[in-house]
Amino acid sequence: MTLSSFISVPPESHFPIQNLPYGVFSPKSGGSKRIGVAIGDHVLDLAALGEAGFFAGTVAQADKVFEQGALNAFMALGSDSWRQVRQIVQDALREDNPDLRDNAALRERVLLPMQSVTLHLPAEIADYTDFYVSKEHATNLGTLFRGKENALLPNWVHVPIAYHGRASSIVVSGTDIHRPYGQVRGEDGKTPIFTASRQMDFELEVGYFVGPGNELGHSIPIGEAMNHVFGAVLVNDWSARDIQNWEYQPLGPFLGKNLGTSISPWVVPMEALDVFRCPQPVQDPQPLPYLRTQGNWAYDISLEVSLRTDTMPTFTTVTRTNLRYAYWNICQQIAHHTITGCNLRPGDLLATGTISGPTPDSYGSLIELSWRGANPVALAGNEQRSFLEDGDCVRMTGWAQGDGFRVGFGDVTGCLLPSLRTGL
Amino acid sequence: MTLSSFISVPPESHFPIQNLPYGVFSPKSGGSKRIGVAIGDHVLDLAALGEAGFFAGTVAQADKVFEQGALNAFMALGSDSWRQVRQIVQDALREDNPDLRDNAALRERVLLPMQSVTLHLPAEIADYTDFYVSKEHATNLGTLFRGKENALLPNWVHVPIAYHGRASSIVVSGTDIHRPYGQVRGEDGKTPIFTASRQMDFELEVGYFVGPGNELGHSIPIGEAMNHVFGAVLVNDWSARDIQNWEYQPLGPFLGKNLGTSISPWVVPMEALDVFRCPQPVQDPQPLPYLRTQGNWAYDISLEVSLRTDTMPTFTTVTRTNLRYAYWNICQQIAHHTITGCNLRPGDLLATGTISGPTPDSYGSLIELSWRGANPVALAGNEQRSFLEDGDCVRMTGWAQGDGFRVGFGDVTGCLLPSLRTGL
Repeated sequence: MTLSSFISVPPESHFPIQNLPYGVFSPKSGGSKRIGVAIGDHVLDLAALGEAGFFAGTVAQADKVFEQGALNAFMALGSDSWRQVRQIVQDALREDNPDLRDNAALRERVLLPMQSVTLHLPAEIADYTDFYVSKEHATNLGTLFRGKENALLPNWVHVPIAYHGRASSIVVSGTDIHRPYGQVRGEDGKTPIFTASRQMDFELEVGYFVGPGNELGHSIPIGEAMNHVFGAVLVNDWSARDIQNWEYQPLGPFLGKNLGTSISPWVVPMEALDVFRCPQPVQDPQPLPYLRTQGNWAYDISLEVSLRTDTMPTFTTVTRTNLRYAYWNICQQIAHHTITGCNLRPGDLLATGTISGPTPDSYGSLIELSWRGANPVALAGNEQRSFLEDGDCVRMTGWAQGDGFRVGFGDVTGCLLPSLRTGL
Repeated sequence: MTLSSFISVPPESHFPIQNLPYGVFSPKSGGSKRIGVAIGDHVLDLAALGEAGFFAGTVAQADKVFEQGALNAFMALGSDSWRQVRQIVQDALREDNPDLRDNAALRERVLLPMQSVTLHLPAEIADYTDFYVSKEHATNLGTLFRGKENALLPNWVHVPIAYHGRASSIVVSGTDIHRPYGQVRGEDGKTPIFTASRQMDFELEVGYFVGPGNELGHSIPIGEAMNHVFGAVLVNDWSARDIQNWEYQPLGPFLGKNLGTSISPWVVPMEALDVFRCPQPVQDPQPLPYLRTQGNWAYDISLEVSLRTDTMPTFTTVTRTNLRYAYWNICQQIAHHTITGCNLRPGDLLATGTISGPTPDSYGSLIELSWRGANPVALAGNEQRSFLEDGDCVRMTGWAQGDGFRVGFGDVTGCLLPSLRTGL
């Protein structure tokens, strides 16, 4: 029998009973932040469900992890607790379970219309790491920044390249971003110009939240990596390409990226994504032993980016790609990150870097789609874009397609507003 | 009259009444973490001093910032509160003030011998940024990593280059570090070898703790930067040079640095360092307007690194340098970091990067001192080092020399232990 809920969920919804993503919400009518699960167009209040005794006897209940304003404490409990809680929530929402279904007073207390709540950052993100897992993206950016000869550096096929990102400027979907000022390379290539960025871009990524993590000095073997991955969100890593291009050597991107990173509010459990695992691109040369995985660890997740300028009534889709194009998988990301003994903590975010596919219509950033302005992207109403303009809104979405249902991420949106700076 | 305390402090002590650095401690006999101030070889318990009414009427007392296990809340209060609290503490410790001096019972409660307490990380460091402010260091590393022709890249004299470091692996002085495993460049230059790092190094740095900080999208004008700097510590940014060299292009250092960063436990207030401001190196070309400072913003602070191998009874000093060699000053670091609107938060750590002086005996890392093994550093007992070996202990110290007193940082120590990994 197909799993289904007494809450009616249309097949194109991102939040069927097969998904059950976690988020942090507060009722618009007032009240503190707490943990919820998305089901259709409702939010199931786990703190309230706990008060009703559904989590009796669990560590999650004993530790009061659902009454908190961030998922970190729940993330720290580990995969046994995650499975246990997921099972309880799924059972509670099943069509054939009368406990909640037939208790109108309880339903009133624990199920809130999605429109009646405010969604917040799902976790306190202590450290944010951004990888560079798409070979297509690394090749494209390398070509644009360093030329074809030096596009993909020799280390790339051996090292899941990554850098530490800025955690403070991670914001939840719906937060506006302001165009940054900064230094960009002048015409002589050696002196800078101070200006508002002229090359604002999005980056389409997926981010994984870390669970228990490891102690400093110890590493996580690749076979145990998935015990440390709580779930996934969509990430828009806003980028100022001109600032990045001038500053990034030799220590990597800094101001070109730290102006803001937007994430979707619902954290999709890895358990919900498990059935969508698929083969990843062939890794040739074979990775070093500490990076070798058995079986399929890519995920078949459709990803899309849409743009809307301030003269357009609706969004135009500008790229369609898939997480399965990622060359390095999440187990490899975890094993590599900790191989030196670097400690991961609950709530750390490990993003993929831009996910680009093999064809020009599947690139995950505007600089790739427009090839730095050589081929502006056509939008509805005769508009086009090489980079983002003030007032442009970006919407990213993603989902895995099941048989009659979707396990989706919802979306991450954000608009680019003019700089708050007045003058140089 | 010279400022002096009723607590006897010898002239070579780092913690006279002119300093009064803040730290987080817990009594070894038991009890929770709280905030203290170092005075001579004692710790003044600010939580206990607050209970005795010394901070009555202050925001610091109302917010109970001294009863916490981290300085973040106090850092957030801003420079007016810092000045107010410093004045109260300094007054309480003055030789000519009987309030505490002549109250034996109170002294017993609030003054603890330094040996009777455990020192902890002074703050919860949400984001850690490491700059690259020493022109000598950037030139030396550039020469060793990329050759003389490409040593100092064109952006360096315009951009206070920085990268986001790893916050989770910052540890307090005295914490041992384990040698990391990782990928290093093989002999053909294009394929890696998996090995325990063979080029473990220290980096001598100073780190500044951020105070109130700024909202996302806004920047901190350079003239207001010092309102956001709470104090300074010593930083040993442990580095695996061989891992760093193979991984660092194009996104910068990652695993070569995230294996551990040690900091000294006492945060020296910027107010205590103010009288030691001095001219910085001439900046030519002139920085862009957003990076121009008026007056002297370098600090005349002597810095030293000593090494002790496991066969040596005492430490040998291997380098003597000075923070005044920093090309970019802390105001420039703050203004640059926020120019894109990146938000700084209380407790963020902004380190300088390695401080190297102009002469080979004033370099701030072993790879520079030994010129990557070409000139091993001589130690006592006929030992020498090109890089660190297992069992080696590193001690860094720093102080500003006043007239008859020192405003010092104490030290940051750490030993390199063998890898916890067994086999490849």
